[in-house]
Amino acid sequence: MRDDAFSTGSFTLPGEAGFEKLTAKLAELWGADTIRDSDGTRLSDEILSSGTDICSTLCLVRADNAWAKANPDKLQQNFLMSRPVVATGPTVRVDLLDGYSRDQFVVNVDDDPRGFWQVFDRTTGVEVPPSSWDLDAGTGAVTIARATPWHRYTVNFLVRRIWEEISMYNHVTNDWGDRERLMSVEPRHPETRAHLLEVLDRWLAERPATKVVRFTSLFYNFAWFWGDRPERRFVYSDWGSYDFTVNPAALRAFEKARGYRMSSEDFVNAGLYNASHNVPSARYRDWMEFTHDFVVEFGRTCVFNGFEARLCAAVPGVATRELRLHPYLFPTGLRGEPTFAEGGNPTLDAKRYWVQVRRALLRAPVDRIGLGGYLHLVEPFPDFQDCIAELAREFRLLKTFHERGSPHVLPARVGVVTAWGRLRTWTCSGHLHEHPELELTHMLESLSGLPVDVEFISFDDIAARGVPEAIGELVNAGRQGSAWSGGRYWKEPALVERVRSWVAAGGALIGIGEPTAEPHGGSYFQLSDVLGVERETGRSICSAKCTFPPPDGTHFITRDLEGAPDFGRDVDGIHAIDGGTTVLASRDGSPTITVREYGSGRSLYLSGFVHSPANARLLHRGIAWCARMEAEFPAWTCEDVRLECAWYPAKRTLVVINNCGDPVGSRVFDGGGNAFRVSLEAHGIAILER
Amino acid sequence: MRDDAFSTGSFTLPGEAGFEKLTAKLAELWGADTIRDSDGTRLSDEILSSGTDICSTLCLVRADNAWAKANPDKLQQNFLMSRPVVATGPTVRVDLLDGYSRDQFVVNVDDDPRGFWQVFDRTTGVEVPPSSWDLDAGTGAVTIARATPWHRYTVNFLVRRIWEEISMYNHVTNDWGDRERLMSVEPRHPETRAHLLEVLDRWLAERPATKVVRFTSLFYNFAWFWGDRPERRFVYSDWGSYDFTVNPAALRAFEKARGYRMSSEDFVNAGLYNASHNVPSARYRDWMEFTHDFVVEFGRTCVFNGFEARLCAAVPGVATRELRLHPYLFPTGLRGEPTFAEGGNPTLDAKRYWVQVRRALLRAPVDRIGLGGYLHLVEPFPDFQDCIAELAREFRLLKTFHERGSPHVLPARVGVVTAWGRLRTWTCSGHLHEHPELELTHMLESLSGLPVDVEFISFDDIAARGVPEAIGELVNAGRQGSAWSGGRYWKEPALVERVRSWVAAGGALIGIGEPTAEPHGGSYFQLSDVLGVERETGRSICSAKCTFPPPDGTHFITRDLEGAPDFGRDVDGIHAIDGGTTVLASRDGSPTITVREYGSGRSLYLSGFVHSPANARLLHRGIAWCARMEAEFPAWTCEDVRLECAWYPAKRTLVVINNCGDPVGSRVFDGGGNAFRVSLEAHGIAILER
Repeated sequence: MRDDAFSTGSFTLPGEAGFEKLTAKLAELWGADTIRDSDGTRLSDEILSSGTDICSTLCLVRADNAWAKANPDKLQQNFLMSRPVVATGPTVRVDLLDGYSRDQFVVNVDDDPRGFWQVFDRTTGVEVPPSSWDLDAGTGAVTIARATPWHRYTVNFLVRRIWEEISMYNHVTNDWGDRERLMSVEPRHPETRAHLLEVLDRWLAERPATKVVRFTSLFYNFAWFWGDRPERRFVYSDWGSYDFTVNPAALRAFEKARGYRMSSEDFVNAGLYNASHNVPSARYRDWMEFTHDFVVEFGRTCVFNGFEARLCAAVPGVATRELRLHPYLFPTGLRGEPTFAEGGNPTLDAKRYWVQVRRALLRAPVDRIGLGGYLHLVEPFPDFQDCIAELAREFRLLKTFHERGSPHVLPARVGVVTAWGRLRTWTCSGHLHEHPELELTHMLESLSGLPVDVEFISFDDIAARGVPEAIGELVNAGRQGSAWSGGRYWKEPALVERVRSWVAAGGALIGIGEPTAEPHGGSYFQLSDVLGVERETGRSICSAKCTFPPPDGTHFITRDLEGAPDFGRDVDGIHAIDGGTTVLASRDGSPTITVREYGSGRSLYLSGFVHSPANARLLHRGIAWCARMEAEFPAWTCEDVRLECAWYPAKRTLVVINNCGDPVGSRVFDGGGNAFRVSLEAHGIAILER
Repeated sequence: MRDDAFSTGSFTLPGEAGFEKLTAKLAELWGADTIRDSDGTRLSDEILSSGTDICSTLCLVRADNAWAKANPDKLQQNFLMSRPVVATGPTVRVDLLDGYSRDQFVVNVDDDPRGFWQVFDRTTGVEVPPSSWDLDAGTGAVTIARATPWHRYTVNFLVRRIWEEISMYNHVTNDWGDRERLMSVEPRHPETRAHLLEVLDRWLAERPATKVVRFTSLFYNFAWFWGDRPERRFVYSDWGSYDFTVNPAALRAFEKARGYRMSSEDFVNAGLYNASHNVPSARYRDWMEFTHDFVVEFGRTCVFNGFEARLCAAVPGVATRELRLHPYLFPTGLRGEPTFAEGGNPTLDAKRYWVQVRRALLRAPVDRIGLGGYLHLVEPFPDFQDCIAELAREFRLLKTFHERGSPHVLPARVGVVTAWGRLRTWTCSGHLHEHPELELTHMLESLSGLPVDVEFISFDDIAARGVPEAIGELVNAGRQGSAWSGGRYWKEPALVERVRSWVAAGGALIGIGEPTAEPHGGSYFQLSDVLGVERETGRSICSAKCTFPPPDGTHFITRDLEGAPDFGRDVDGIHAIDGGTTVLASRDGSPTITVREYGSGRSLYLSGFVHSPANARLLHRGIAWCARMEAEFPAWTCEDVRLECAWYPAKRTLVVINNCGDPVGSRVFDGGGNAFRVSLEAHGIAILER
């Protein structure tokens, strides 16, 4: 691992002005070929002239704060729903921003509130006519007349954002005091667009050393509503929502383009908004497409302009994929826990993160890695510095294996079906740590390191065109009513017809948690016949449940499982629909793993999922069983589930990795079924040529 | 406890022919004043002439099996839904009785199947027109033409029952071999009614020694569908359903009386039927009332007839309440576990049961106790014989305390609100052991022994007339969508208006599990503002939740709680709506006990409930806090939660009971707040005059 071929390149270092020596030392140690700036920092001339490629970060929409301040009508906007207020008499006063950060939001009283806002009686679900409410622009309060006592009322209203949320987060987390609060401007206005292109030109001209421009959040951030009290610091956030793309200009443009009008309620959705995990409405999908078109169109103008100015040799359209390592170089993490601070252990954090991503890097190549944040924070952590140097070398080595072709996979192709399909390939609902309760995210984490091909597909795609020819196993994972499980989609006859007929003809359905779940027609799992199981949610407790013989642990799928599966907070109340379902594991009488034959096809049900070596293996075996590839499964696998391996046939190289913090020795099976022994230290790696 | 005043009376013994000596011995030992027969038994002349009052059991509708056999068109009927069948082509064949016991059911092919039956495409929810299906009366199969491939189909069809379900259960459990299988006849037919009155006359004439007639199941049993395969011995059962009251005669009478027609689907309800725990439809409530009227009317005829024949001195209308002790004198219990058989411990069973009912007997008097089943089974269990003698004495003693007036209670009156209200006072969904998952049943078990008054009220009552004046604390306990929690009722504005305004004016809401739950208007708990908590069900995971200070255990409600509350399988994902909710206990960040002030009223939320001494005390304290009777609470309470007491002011007698199987000593507080010490043996009782 000390070969100099792996000592430099493919590494982006966050430089920091005032720490030029440290920047130079770590650039050398980590083999950085690019130095970038970070949010709120500017590289010094010394660093800029160091000879290393310079990457400059630009969040275009908040790049000119003076202009933003001078043009408050061009600030980005969004809809908020007021906190519900219960009427105690015929008049209700709603303080619109109660509960929300007044540092972040101001009520937009200028853009036709009666036209864009809506007031709802949430008890009846009926909109209060605009003639029955009044806005006091001075106090930001709405007064509802002729209210029904003891009903709950809410107001959907437009706000301007006077503090851009990432600026806000960095400012607060790094304790920036009276440093300027940045604002984002709305590119839907032609004046804004013209100004942004000027800003970009000027910005590039001022940075002759910059070779790469890193555009952050082009042009809209994910939604992040901050709160106004200590018990609720944040109110709402979603990495996939389009909430911050809404404003009167966009709404008017939408109406013109699509021939109908989006209402405030289309966005507010009774306070649930349109988070990625909620099943989207057709109208909201329309809005997303409309916004996407705009961002691509104006984004192309910006990028073209930028590239032209730089006379970039790179062909537009070929992306370079860079993976940012964790932890972020901040004193504390997202939940306030110490990282580069007293009590933190950034080296361990980095190793754990690396072990998680490494298994995926064996399956799919990434071009570069890098770090983000403030470099000076790593100075007191020499261990961390060495650890990153080691990881960088390992990364460069792993990259080389992909040079001549893909690694060996089972000839199985898994289709993951969600409401979003390709649009949210792998990402789903943001980071795993933000929604650790989502079975799908865990399942994808396991899947990312398995030797199978994966694609993402939407319920709409399947309803319209069936399951694509290439897919052999379809995964539906999530809780009832979510965009992942599917909710209302499972009431669409076309969808269930397509999936049933496809499985019966030889396909396979892998259901996790509450697959195909939606109460309808007396069923909860709409494909309970395919899955072979149903869930008792309290509606049918008078119906007796099938008993089943105790599992004996000999099934192909559970052969590597020691004891009961640990699926975290999984689903209970599961029961077999009849004796045709085979229960492979159960807890308190509720099956946790089941299989069934359906026509010429198969199905596998898991009551939940958390990523772990044992569960990744269970999934691997489950996919192989569903694909009827039990015989092909052993090739290039490790007996001990804590080890994984990848075989690169073109290089005749086998890479074995240890995903755990203990030394592990295990038998490893080659393509011919022959076993040999491999021993690895904690988090270790072995490169074997065969 | 050996006072002869308590050695006889108020006890009903099940006599058994062939065991005359044992019958006489136990009648003496247990102080029985009445001997009764049991299902399938007939008392011998020796017993009948023993001088003890004779109670004879009669299930009128199955009393003349020869007539039932000769009149198969008069057998009782019901609707069944066939097991769902997925179409694989344009024609689907549905074997109607697949999954159901053919010993119990035969398809009724005679009564206008096309008029009464319905076939559904459960994938679309649309009924298949009668012209598109055909019944093969010979095989009992329906063939559907022009089906949509891969849709699920079901048939609602009428069956006759050729084996009455209690006869079936007794027959199978007691291994009666080729003994006759009894059938129930349908009293909706005038011929049946005339015949039943004749049977009753004859039956009474044949039993000159009989002083009391015990009518069992007058005239309809609870629903109990048996299955046809070992993995599903029973298909469906509910102690409160009206499924077995349905037949063409009744359906026609209903249409005539009410002016509209009940459909098969009104009963089948997509296979969920109308179990007591499901929220009833208005039409089903109508059916229940219609049936109730008929049963009362014809029942009155029968009873009048019976009393007249006997020249009974008792005034009709005054009921004698008899409590049947457990265990039942059968070799095995309902789940097949041994009772009066090798491996059983009927004495312990009896004591445990007695301790459970005794605390309720302190609060509300019962007139008599008794046993059921086959007396000879107790012969090898002398311990059990002595135990029952002891319990009978204790029962007679407890009865005397109520003679001069009610025991002391907190001046609080708890209203338990369900979809059923008074109709299902205390009973709810049948026995606790059948649905141990129901929070309400556990809560009622605790409530039955607490010194508070209780009444039952329906959502309809409250929506129409508000919470009754006398009620101080309203309890809503159960899971979303159940008849206990309320489901769709909570979308009715009148209901939420009434409850909100009542609490705000000084009432109190006690919510358990998922109170007021129904997804609507962006809320899950419709009265989250009153309760102060909401539940995350996966729809709003992007909304941040309020943090709360760690509970310090000093609140009045939790003062007797040691450690975390144990509510069994309670509800997770609970969060405070804002800082105004006080969290008294939590688990994994999810509050389990919270309180809130609402206007002049209060609310208490518990995430679940199982009956235990600790939880009964928690409920007792919770009611006192809600009633603002913290000062009145200590009077006549025991410090140790395993003891309970009742103060009978008119008799100046305090009864202290030990509800647990260990000796307990505890301080007890009198009405003036003075403490004194009481020590009791396991399951013990102390009678203190003061």
